[in-house]
Amino acid sequence: MADPRPVALDAFGGDKAPEAIIEGAALARDQGVPVLLVGDAEKLKGRVPKGVEVVHAPGIVGMDEPASAPLRKKTDASIRRIFELVNEGVAQAAVTCGHSGAAMASALHVLGPLPGIDRAPLATVVPRRDGGQLVLLDLGANVDCKPMHFAQFAVLGESYARAILGIEHPRVGLLANGEERGKGNTQVRAAFPEIEALGLAFVGNVEPLGALRGECDVLVCDGFVGNVMLKTVEGTVEVVGAILREELRRRYDGLLGRWLMQGAFRRFRQRTTYDSVGGAILLGVNGVAVVGHGRADARAVASAVRYARNCASAGLVATVRARAQERLDTGESEAAAIVGAPFRGRPNG
Amino acid sequence: MADPRPVALDAFGGDKAPEAIIEGAALARDQGVPVLLVGDAEKLKGRVPKGVEVVHAPGIVGMDEPASAPLRKKTDASIRRIFELVNEGVAQAAVTCGHSGAAMASALHVLGPLPGIDRAPLATVVPRRDGGQLVLLDLGANVDCKPMHFAQFAVLGESYARAILGIEHPRVGLLANGEERGKGNTQVRAAFPEIEALGLAFVGNVEPLGALRGECDVLVCDGFVGNVMLKTVEGTVEVVGAILREELRRRYDGLLGRWLMQGAFRRFRQRTTYDSVGGAILLGVNGVAVVGHGRADARAVASAVRYARNCASAGLVATVRARAQERLDTGESEAAAIVGAPFRGRPNG
Repeated sequence: MADPRPVALDAFGGDKAPEAIIEGAALARDQGVPVLLVGDAEKLKGRVPKGVEVVHAPGIVGMDEPASAPLRKKTDASIRRIFELVNEGVAQAAVTCGHSGAAMASALHVLGPLPGIDRAPLATVVPRRDGGQLVLLDLGANVDCKPMHFAQFAVLGESYARAILGIEHPRVGLLANGEERGKGNTQVRAAFPEIEALGLAFVGNVEPLGALRGECDVLVCDGFVGNVMLKTVEGTVEVVGAILREELRRRYDGLLGRWLMQGAFRRFRQRTTYDSVGGAILLGVNGVAVVGHGRADARAVASAVRYARNCASAGLVATVRARAQERLDTGESEAAAIVGAPFRGRPNG
Repeated sequence: MADPRPVALDAFGGDKAPEAIIEGAALARDQGVPVLLVGDAEKLKGRVPKGVEVVHAPGIVGMDEPASAPLRKKTDASIRRIFELVNEGVAQAAVTCGHSGAAMASALHVLGPLPGIDRAPLATVVPRRDGGQLVLLDLGANVDCKPMHFAQFAVLGESYARAILGIEHPRVGLLANGEERGKGNTQVRAAFPEIEALGLAFVGNVEPLGALRGECDVLVCDGFVGNVMLKTVEGTVEVVGAILREELRRRYDGLLGRWLMQGAFRRFRQRTTYDSVGGAILLGVNGVAVVGHGRADARAVASAVRYARNCASAGLVATVRARAQERLDTGESEAAAIVGAPFRGRPNG
């Protein structure tokens, strides 16, 4: 039976908040996903769609504030409250399109890390040339990583591919500038044996071109490099689209080419950017936490909400937890020591 | 007056060597660029196009050999001999599609670094959405970089943009995962003030999406990250092309869409991969050194030869040398100390 609990949605995160968020909540509701709008009830008054409940949380974390703001000065922030609702069992998952650093810090602090996890990476799915899907992580949450963090990302990404993409033995690759063992920078060379020792279906170093062609299902890298790769995919799609449109305009005098391309472009954009899932998922925390695009519109917000619900329904957190306990060293984690939030026994997803 | 000297071309570098190289030499000759084919004369016998001369250099460096092979065991390698021909004043530029590490080591050893330069980066040009061109460097020659290396790359890339793209005041960006100062990993944060101190038109941190939209003319990064970015561009073009073709096939039952797309695809591929220039250029050495695609076909080889000739004609090396002397600390360089090849006074380009 489907979990009847709502998805907690941060009403004050994102470039187009709260308008696009409110509209997105209505869309999600229409699509059969119950939503809790979390934010300043005073500001939301008179604008809340019918059938959508509001949870009051007046604090708003601006994009220029430190990631730690909701942990210290703004403990009443909506970006923190959504995770508390998951932790309290009120919501089945949390979604924000706000400050991704603040989202990560709040999720880690409130939900706590899963056993064996020190860093919570952001992951998304990129379409491959062979029609398959590539899980890419980390996307920016952790820019400087130690070898053990790469290993943790490998376990998290692999579990995601099993739970959400239904791949039985996901092939895990380490992002590098060449396929031979020994390629990569200092961090990558040090991470290689750590991932190898996990006993996953590790295919070794994989280049971006190879990964996008289908040589692996999960691609592991640090947050700096992953962010560069994801944003390069997005940028290239834009450049290619602009060049194609220009070429077609030049050759076919506009109308015909444009008419032909319109639908195709819309569809490939849906597949080639992470708009299709509405955002990235924060893995390694004890609950489902989705971080949407900052520039998400109502459709993307609804999509992120559906995505969060689907991850919860698929038992993502339970799958990840089991795999982490099986493959990682589950002593007192660095993250738990830092945020003062030891692993909680009660599963949230 | 055009330099009448030939371009030295490594006949035994690349996946399709020597056939594609020989054919490429003939193409370049037809296009008015004189070529010297460098390699084992015995193996080339009876296959050399009319009007193309051969310089005997029997050693071949395989892709599995160390980059230092032409410096130690194989000093007679064709990948080394091409740079000697430039250094001797016989050739105006050198081109290889072989082992890029061996090409870099040979060029640095034989031609020597320019004053103030410790690391020779590979650079290429990527088309931007606004119709402009983005100089991207380093592309893989140097995976672990110190702050001063980033600064050297900035000066080299800026000089390239002035000499080859004709931009008077190229805007230089530092590749990062966010635009705010303080973003980036440890290396990037340390490189920022070093680049800032050069007095170039430095626009600070730039994200891949911003760079591809036109926020800067030169994008500086270490060789690991640059390689990931370049290969992600190539991979994304493939994925987008595959998805578009599939969508068009599905919607228009093949023929019409395919016919319309064919020319446009060919043209955007020419603009969106570095096939258009036939390869990357090694900057910071005392001569023009072009490293072509390993998988270059005859057309790409000819394109790399033309590109090398154009860089020499434009006085690239002289422009770079002047800028390096003006902006960098030109004491005894690390590279000169390592390869035992002090800066030579005689300009090669």
